[in-house]
Amino acid sequence: MHGPTEGRLSRYEDGGGAAGRLGAAVVGLGGAVATTAVAGVELIRLGVCGQDGLPLAARTDLVPYEEIVFGGWDVSADDLAKAAHLHRVLDPAHIEAVAPQLQRLRPWPAVADPEYCRAVVGANVVAADGLRARTERIREDLRRFRDEQDVDQVVVVNLASTERLPDPASPALASVEAFEAALDDGDEAVTPSMLYAYAALREDMAYLNFTPSAGAGVPALTRLAERRGVPIAGKDGKTGQTMVKTVLAPALRSRALRVEGWYSTNLLGNRDGRALEDPDSLASKTATKESVLDSVLGYPVEDHRVRIEFYRPRGDEKEAWDNVDLVGFLGRRMQMKIDFLCRDSVLAAPLVLELVRLLAEARRRGERGVQEQFGYFFKAPMTAHGGVPEHALHRQEQNLLDWLDGADRAAARSVRP
Amino acid sequence: MHGPTEGRLSRYEDGGGAAGRLGAAVVGLGGAVATTAVAGVELIRLGVCGQDGLPLAARTDLVPYEEIVFGGWDVSADDLAKAAHLHRVLDPAHIEAVAPQLQRLRPWPAVADPEYCRAVVGANVVAADGLRARTERIREDLRRFRDEQDVDQVVVVNLASTERLPDPASPALASVEAFEAALDDGDEAVTPSMLYAYAALREDMAYLNFTPSAGAGVPALTRLAERRGVPIAGKDGKTGQTMVKTVLAPALRSRALRVEGWYSTNLLGNRDGRALEDPDSLASKTATKESVLDSVLGYPVEDHRVRIEFYRPRGDEKEAWDNVDLVGFLGRRMQMKIDFLCRDSVLAAPLVLELVRLLAEARRRGERGVQEQFGYFFKAPMTAHGGVPEHALHRQEQNLLDWLDGADRAAARSVRP
Amino acid sequence: MHGPTEGRLSRYEDGGGAAGRLGAAVVGLGGAVATTAVAGVELIRLGVCGQDGLPLAARTDLVPYEEIVFGGWDVSADDLAKAAHLHRVLDPAHIEAVAPQLQRLRPWPAVADPEYCRAVVGANVVAADGLRARTERIREDLRRFRDEQDVDQVVVVNLASTERLPDPASPALASVEAFEAALDDGDEAVTPSMLYAYAALREDMAYLNFTPSAGAGVPALTRLAERRGVPIAGKDGKTGQTMVKTVLAPALRSRALRVEGWYSTNLLGNRDGRALEDPDSLASKTATKESVLDSVLGYPVEDHRVRIEFYRPRGDEKEAWDNVDLVGFLGRRMQMKIDFLCRDSVLAAPLVLELVRLLAEARRRGERGVQEQFGYFFKAPMTAHGGVPEHALHRQEQNLLDWLDGADRAAARSVRP
Amino acid sequence: MHGPTEGRLSRYEDGGGAAGRLGAAVVGLGGAVATTAVAGVELIRLGVCGQDGLPLAARTDLVPYEEIVFGGWDVSADDLAKAAHLHRVLDPAHIEAVAPQLQRLRPWPAVADPEYCRAVVGANVVAADGLRARTERIREDLRRFRDEQDVDQVVVVNLASTERLPDPASPALASVEAFEAALDDGDEAVTPSMLYAYAALREDMAYLNFTPSAGAGVPALTRLAERRGVPIAGKDGKTGQTMVKTVLAPALRSRALRVEGWYSTNLLGNRDGRALEDPDSLASKTATKESVLDSVLGYPVEDHRVRIEFYRPRGDEKEAWDNVDLVGFLGRRMQMKIDFLCRDSVLAAPLVLELVRLLAEARRRGERGVQEQFGYFFKAPMTAHGGVPEHALHRQEQNLLDWLDGADRAAARSVRP
Repeated sequence: MHGPTEGRLSRYEDGGGAAGRLGAAVVGLGGAVATTAVAGVELIRLGVCGQDGLPLAARTDLVPYEEIVFGGWDVSADDLAKAAHLHRVLDPAHIEAVAPQLQRLRPWPAVADPEYCRAVVGANVVAADGLRARTERIREDLRRFRDEQDVDQVVVVNLASTERLPDPASPALASVEAFEAALDDGDEAVTPSMLYAYAALREDMAYLNFTPSAGAGVPALTRLAERRGVPIAGKDGKTGQTMVKTVLAPALRSRALRVEGWYSTNLLGNRDGRALEDPDSLASKTATKESVLDSVLGYPVEDHRVRIEFYRPRGDEKEAWDNVDLVGFLGRRMQMKIDFLCRDSVLAAPLVLELVRLLAEARRRGERGVQEQFGYFFKAPMTAHGGVPEHALHRQEQNLLDWLDGADRAAARSVRP
Repeated sequence: MHGPTEGRLSRYEDGGGAAGRLGAAVVGLGGAVATTAVAGVELIRLGVCGQDGLPLAARTDLVPYEEIVFGGWDVSADDLAKAAHLHRVLDPAHIEAVAPQLQRLRPWPAVADPEYCRAVVGANVVAADGLRARTERIREDLRRFRDEQDVDQVVVVNLASTERLPDPASPALASVEAFEAALDDGDEAVTPSMLYAYAALREDMAYLNFTPSAGAGVPALTRLAERRGVPIAGKDGKTGQTMVKTVLAPALRSRALRVEGWYSTNLLGNRDGRALEDPDSLASKTATKESVLDSVLGYPVEDHRVRIEFYRPRGDEKEAWDNVDLVGFLGRRMQMKIDFLCRDSVLAAPLVLELVRLLAEARRRGERGVQEQFGYFFKAPMTAHGGVPEHALHRQEQNLLDWLDGADRAAARSVRP
Repeated sequence: MHGPTEGRLSRYEDGGGAAGRLGAAVVGLGGAVATTAVAGVELIRLGVCGQDGLPLAARTDLVPYEEIVFGGWDVSADDLAKAAHLHRVLDPAHIEAVAPQLQRLRPWPAVADPEYCRAVVGANVVAADGLRARTERIREDLRRFRDEQDVDQVVVVNLASTERLPDPASPALASVEAFEAALDDGDEAVTPSMLYAYAALREDMAYLNFTPSAGAGVPALTRLAERRGVPIAGKDGKTGQTMVKTVLAPALRSRALRVEGWYSTNLLGNRDGRALEDPDSLASKTATKESVLDSVLGYPVEDHRVRIEFYRPRGDEKEAWDNVDLVGFLGRRMQMKIDFLCRDSVLAAPLVLELVRLLAEARRRGERGVQEQFGYFFKAPMTAHGGVPEHALHRQEQNLLDWLDGADRAAARSVRP
Repeated sequence: MHGPTEGRLSRYEDGGGAAGRLGAAVVGLGGAVATTAVAGVELIRLGVCGQDGLPLAARTDLVPYEEIVFGGWDVSADDLAKAAHLHRVLDPAHIEAVAPQLQRLRPWPAVADPEYCRAVVGANVVAADGLRARTERIREDLRRFRDEQDVDQVVVVNLASTERLPDPASPALASVEAFEAALDDGDEAVTPSMLYAYAALREDMAYLNFTPSAGAGVPALTRLAERRGVPIAGKDGKTGQTMVKTVLAPALRSRALRVEGWYSTNLLGNRDGRALEDPDSLASKTATKESVLDSVLGYPVEDHRVRIEFYRPRGDEKEAWDNVDLVGFLGRRMQMKIDFLCRDSVLAAPLVLELVRLLAEARRRGERGVQEQFGYFFKAPMTAHGGVPEHALHRQEQNLLDWLDGADRAAARSVRP
């Protein structure tokens, strides 16, 4: 029935019955990444698109892409056909091919707090008063979605614009109990992304944070995930410049080429770029981008700079320009420049689809709390219990494949020269 | 006595006595790479240079750099101080610091055959008549070098300008016996690089081929290496553009970003570049450069081009400009451009030093024939018995470290997603 | 009736009656440049496109774009809607908007000689036997076109794929009389582009050569143009890389920054690129590209290289990468790199439209022979009587504006675009 | 005596006697630009350097470079040999060749006000109390310099690090009288660069401002220059990125390629870069850089950004990376990227030398006040009486040559370098 993908589904479906129907409840459903992911699944269903950009397309032991059904919130009430048209990410012929399906998808009203994300506004906002009431409203949305779609499980996905970072030392975020009290008290330390994460965990649904916002990445919520036995993953999708950085930097280290300076510029003109015009949101974003390099190299690079510029001519077509100053044998200097003319949502959407499938699999296996083995997908991989994250892409890939294949995690070794 | 490096030598010296004194007999001693390597060792001895560019600087179980003594052949009779001055690779202050040592080093007359390398000529050429007589002369040079320097062993290193490739189907290269007969008959299939390789093997000395020339990479000579129990390694050092290619391509494959085209330009103006103005030599070079990509990606890239241009303004400062055309999710196109402003000899020389140390270690361990685990250093890694070489840098690195640490080679697994 | 452009037409039309209707008979009508030019005029008629890319859009003393009607030959019989779809130059929405008009335009059978352009073939070829018969057939086409369209005059435009260059010393091309005899004898020195040029001149029609082929650029035909009082212009449109070169080089000369090397790479994947896979056609193209630099700088650049590569992933989107090695004060070296991600036909088509208007104006003014003042548009500007062409863009622009001013000085001062 | 330059001097010296000896009193004598200019003149005297980078090297009607003698102030007391060594701009062999001459040159104590330039400090500071006293001290320095060196005239040159900009509406800067009062009152509106400019004008010496600071560019001082009949020129030398911008932008306008966005990044690591870490100084710098583009294009570019980054790995080797987003025919988008790997002081120093010669010539001709015809050299050309400056390089060049021609038309036609 699925045509070109029929063969590779058989093994999965052997697993049993309706197990495959999987719900994805997306915060920021009308955004460029979410719209691209939704359209992508519809195009895969139609059989008109190949597997480019999907790293785990060959894994028949994960839920097929075609079995994912979408719902979610957005501050804009536009249906997804209109959103796809505005974002200008997809080939117009592709949008047309799946327009009827996209038109049927209209975002639920969002829980947005203007204090936390000043640059993006919209009319499609829920009226619930108080933090606790907001979480209740989100939980109702999630239950209704699960029941109406008759899905086996739901993964909650944060694709909303970047919020400002919370104070990491806030007592309200330090324990589950304090967080519960903070919800009742309307504590300022709680950000919208945490409300969605909390709601997901209370409904025993897996949670994915593809943004630099806090989401479930505060002690109160990672502990809640462990207690309830729910897998969580994040944060901040590793798509363009940072992906390239975590590929090149390990090689430079391997060849003992010392990095004296690394200057990174990002030009982007989509809604995410506009959100970063808010200095607080920008600080969240650059923080995760900057932490990576020193960790991979094993020494501090004093002249490491990351600039992100909202630059409208590009729309969703992002440019990441990197300059690396190297010192080689006998102190001789060299330079490497990388110009990546990429497309933000085109790189991000397939990774979101893979993570939804992986979190469903983790839930099936009974994994709980932070899923470190999904660090391959993130700029700022969450770690359990204060561990130091691995950033080198090839080692992250190995960790992911080991988990998928059930390999002994104890086999990990120190491999550095 | 060695000052800053004293500490890390102790473990090695525990091994015993004069074991450390290691001879390197270099074909092309006056070239930019060799001169840089020699000057580098002198500067390390003086303690004025750090470990930048030396991937295995921390390995105390290999011969210390300071224990390597150099000799070798060149078509130019200039001493190495003069050569270093002409090549303009090193900081002038560095050349001055080691000028007395470099002045003492004067290349032996080379065995050069104008038929095989038309673009580079020089007056410092040996007069021996006939192939067999030439190999005898080379062997005498090697024995004299070993005895005069009182070294424990000698590694013969090919750093000469690129020759044209031999006919791989030539019967003269198919077996040790045929090769011996070809030496006596003056068979055209035998190239100068083979004469040096043959001489090394007959003297039971390890052989390293850092160039695209044939060297020991024909069946007759790999078998001779196995028979005599001598390790050999090659070929064509992986320094700039191809190194970057074997780092990026595995990541693009990992992320399922399809490579539709890859256009590579090299601008270089040193003696190696001039040698490549000979179309036959150029063909040798581009052949090894082009074979890499498809192997790493797992599919053929129809629009893969490699251009090498002799361009004088740069001298030893090479520019490698790459453009990659990518197809991502839903068929959307992206581009990546990498401009590597590197220095050919600065990248190559430390790898040569590491390989000399590694071959000495392999000889000590009794390894024989092609040393596949050194593929990390080569654009066209030799494999034993027709195997397919691994090109991805991070997997090559793992293979190297496994060998150094004595890890079980059987543990290798298929890790591709 | 013309909507947004109505105002600026009035003054021109005051000049008198049907004077504006102007025919353009294009050799290579189905190619990317021609199709873009035709679609552009239709879109201007619809009022949906602005004046971007049209240097003389403000000149109300030239024929309005809307008054140009097209016809022409092509080896492919596809109508222009189909051609536009295949070339992928235009926004699909734009093609759709003018599809009915484009569908009505179907190329006439071409006079093509496989000897002269091996790489491009097509079925839409005229059967006329012998050179003379071919010119007769072309002249019939031109007369029919003029009469059917009821135009005031016709400009013949060469946009066909690049031919190999003729032998400049051939006696057959040295005089009108020799050329006439060569037509009768079937002399090999006569190339297809000359046949069209000859036919145009014999019909007293202006001739424009936007390609590197010979066209009217041989003594026999420039003299014929002078004798018959017909203006001609060429050759090889200056669009991307060479345009930038003739802008930067004068500035480098002005600042006395010495150019030690200039390395130019072109990646292009359209039909013109495929034609350049024929080494003879490529030689025509690079010859005009290479001659420019030394002329602008006033001294020879020994390391000036121009590479053109047929590289399919780009289609009509061309990439021109330039590297310039500079020497400044006290011999210090610097580099400049320019990467122009342009679109070949988008840059060329509006220049063709301007040249058609300018040649019509030249014809109206009674100018005869080579129109040097149009050098602004060409990589290899034709000069009358062996003059040395001006290549610096800003001086070419001044020459053009001075000529325009000569006609109507009062209107001209505000014209600088 | 002058060797290779002897010939071209004779004509100038025919003009009469000691007329050629010209003093240059430099504010910021120990900086990279000034040190390079001084060393350059010494190397020209030695005949070891050519005329690269000197736009007016062929003008024999200007004072020969060899006739310029230097003096000046700096916050560092290092002699110029030491300064040249630290700046790492020149070839070490060149520094050595003129070390004796450079060692004899030791900067006079500077008048520096830490309020106005916080990032650069030094011990070589004059103790004069109050603004008036400071100007007296500067005037004494100038008179002493003129007398000791026995020069015909002195040009005062501002090459100091960038100050913050003054309030343009300040009444203290509006008239000569108000300014004189402000000096007596110690008014905060008066910046150090104004003190030097005022002192120069009071001593009837020409004044050149090569920096973005105010210098003589306030109404009070331009009027003073006019009253006293002294020529002044400025401001902010046009060397790298902006020079390229004023070359490309006129061409893009000429071809009607619409600029939708222009993103400019500067990486530089010398003392000037460090001074720009002070946000007020940075604002001065970016203001002059940003104003240029709209003026040349004739319309506002909304997405025009200029970033300047202090980035140490480069030292004086600056990188200017520009990205231009273009819209061409039928709305199709294109991009141009320019990466200029330049050397700040190498580009600036020869322009300073030319301006010193030109101001001496202007003084000789009796020109007074702002010298608009020198706009060719500046990012923010001063204009007299509120005129709008010309920014296009080729038109600025024409203006300069026209002025030079006015003096000696017979000599001028061959001057275009």
